[in-house]
Amino acid sequence: MYISELNLRVRYGETDRMGYVYYGNYAEYFEVARVEAMRNLGISYKELEDNGILLPVYTYNITFLKPAFYDDVLLVKTKILRIPQAKIEFEYETYNSCHELINTANTVLVFLSKENNKPIKAPDFFVDRLKTHF
Amino acid sequence: MYISELNLRVRYGETDRMGYVYYGNYAEYFEVARVEAMRNLGISYKELEDNGILLPVYTYNITFLKPAFYDDVLLVKTKILRIPQAKIEFEYETYNSCHELINTANTVLVFLSKENNKPIKAPDFFVDRLKTHF
Amino acid sequence: MYISELNLRVRYGETDRMGYVYYGNYAEYFEVARVEAMRNLGISYKELEDNGILLPVYTYNITFLKPAFYDDVLLVKTKILRIPQAKIEFEYETYNSCHELINTANTVLVFLSKENNKPIKAPDFFVDRLKTHF
Amino acid sequence: MYISELNLRVRYGETDRMGYVYYGNYAEYFEVARVEAMRNLGISYKELEDNGILLPVYTYNITFLKPAFYDDVLLVKTKILRIPQAKIEFEYETYNSCHELINTANTVLVFLSKENNKPIKAPDFFVDRLKTHF
Repeated sequence: MYISELNLRVRYGETDRMGYVYYGNYAEYFEVARVEAMRNLGISYKELEDNGILLPVYTYNITFLKPAFYDDVLLVKTKILRIPQAKIEFEYETYNSCHELINTANTVLVFLSKENNKPIKAPDFFVDRLKTHF
Repeated sequence: MYISELNLRVRYGETDRMGYVYYGNYAEYFEVARVEAMRNLGISYKELEDNGILLPVYTYNITFLKPAFYDDVLLVKTKILRIPQAKIEFEYETYNSCHELINTANTVLVFLSKENNKPIKAPDFFVDRLKTHF
Repeated sequence: MYISELNLRVRYGETDRMGYVYYGNYAEYFEVARVEAMRNLGISYKELEDNGILLPVYTYNITFLKPAFYDDVLLVKTKILRIPQAKIEFEYETYNSCHELINTANTVLVFLSKENNKPIKAPDFFVDRLKTHF
Repeated sequence: MYISELNLRVRYGETDRMGYVYYGNYAEYFEVARVEAMRNLGISYKELEDNGILLPVYTYNITFLKPAFYDDVLLVKTKILRIPQAKIEFEYETYNSCHELINTANTVLVFLSKENNKPIKAPDFFVDRLKTHF
């Protein structure tokens, strides 16, 4: 299993009139979390795209346990539980600054060739980097 | 079963560098879709909140089948399949202008008292409005 | 002078914890307003881009007079005061449902060739469509 | 004069189909930049609000010189040039990782009492913290 951690601070514009982080904004937090998880593996998602490999999201699920508030520093734990083949799954846990679990989520992304928009296998270097953690 | 339909046009700012609607932005489309679904029932979500009833999202799941693009006019079909008690579930189907199903999603929301943040039952007038469709 | 009007309803996700529309979100309202202003002239901004002409924003200024709130239906009046050459200026006035002016804004956009990213003149068909209003 | 610096990395969801950071997203970058500028002075904007003082934006102006791209690490320099009275002005310069100035902006914010929504003077502790830099 590979685990990566990210801290991020809630922006004013990410809150809603309920005073909570708007439920739609967590998707961007998880995007940042998985990109940093990859960077910590030595994989730049930007370079991946520049080299013709897209990773669009196929499924996204989130369960909200508690709200997050303005200026909170959140901790997002990102896990990869399986070596990817055509798909890669990221699992997320978000904690507030009181170390309370505030939501759990997961995303499944698909490796796609930019050229023809067809599914492809996870590139070897991606798999190799991950394997050192399994 | 209650069904409501909403058309909305993709904004430039909602696209990402892949040229797709960013995956995080659908949550806002579904927020608009369920609010309009309620409005079509004669229920103003704003008044609900002003009267002390919050409806935060508990779970949100989405499966992406095809991307949406800038300036597309999307059709979101919103369904309520069951009379709500403490929770209400909305199911969504999004279609592009070629009538292709591009994603399916659902959200479960919880009725909360604004006063004490405790779960409450769906208000009677809410249930009554819905019942005429079942 | 050319004037176009657009109504749009404030989404929940566009509010912030102050209960106002977040100040950063008006830029997207004005994007929608100017795209619809063009569409009302018979010009599709999407086709413009697909034909190799970009219109990035060069300057954006806004003065806030009053806040807007969740579920408000806003009216955005978009004006083009001059026939464009290398740049095009849009002026905006936003009104709430009480017909109060809540902000004024303007954007200057530059016609750019997608091919070489160089400034170009406003295309003839664009100028011709506008001229009928001057 | 008081200057504060902030680094932030462009998120995928902040880009648009032109491949640029969407013009509307800089407002949020500047919000983060001024909040961190205050925090560096020992002032928590959140506490300010919790103590009944709001700081809504009155004017916002931005001039775009170059675009920013996905995954860029931007540097935002935030300046306060004058001791605030009823209003406070922040000036911003954004640089890309090649040290190129990519935009300049400013915001004027108004000190408001949350209780009655009336303008008030900048609180003494705020002015005192700033004065040490002038």
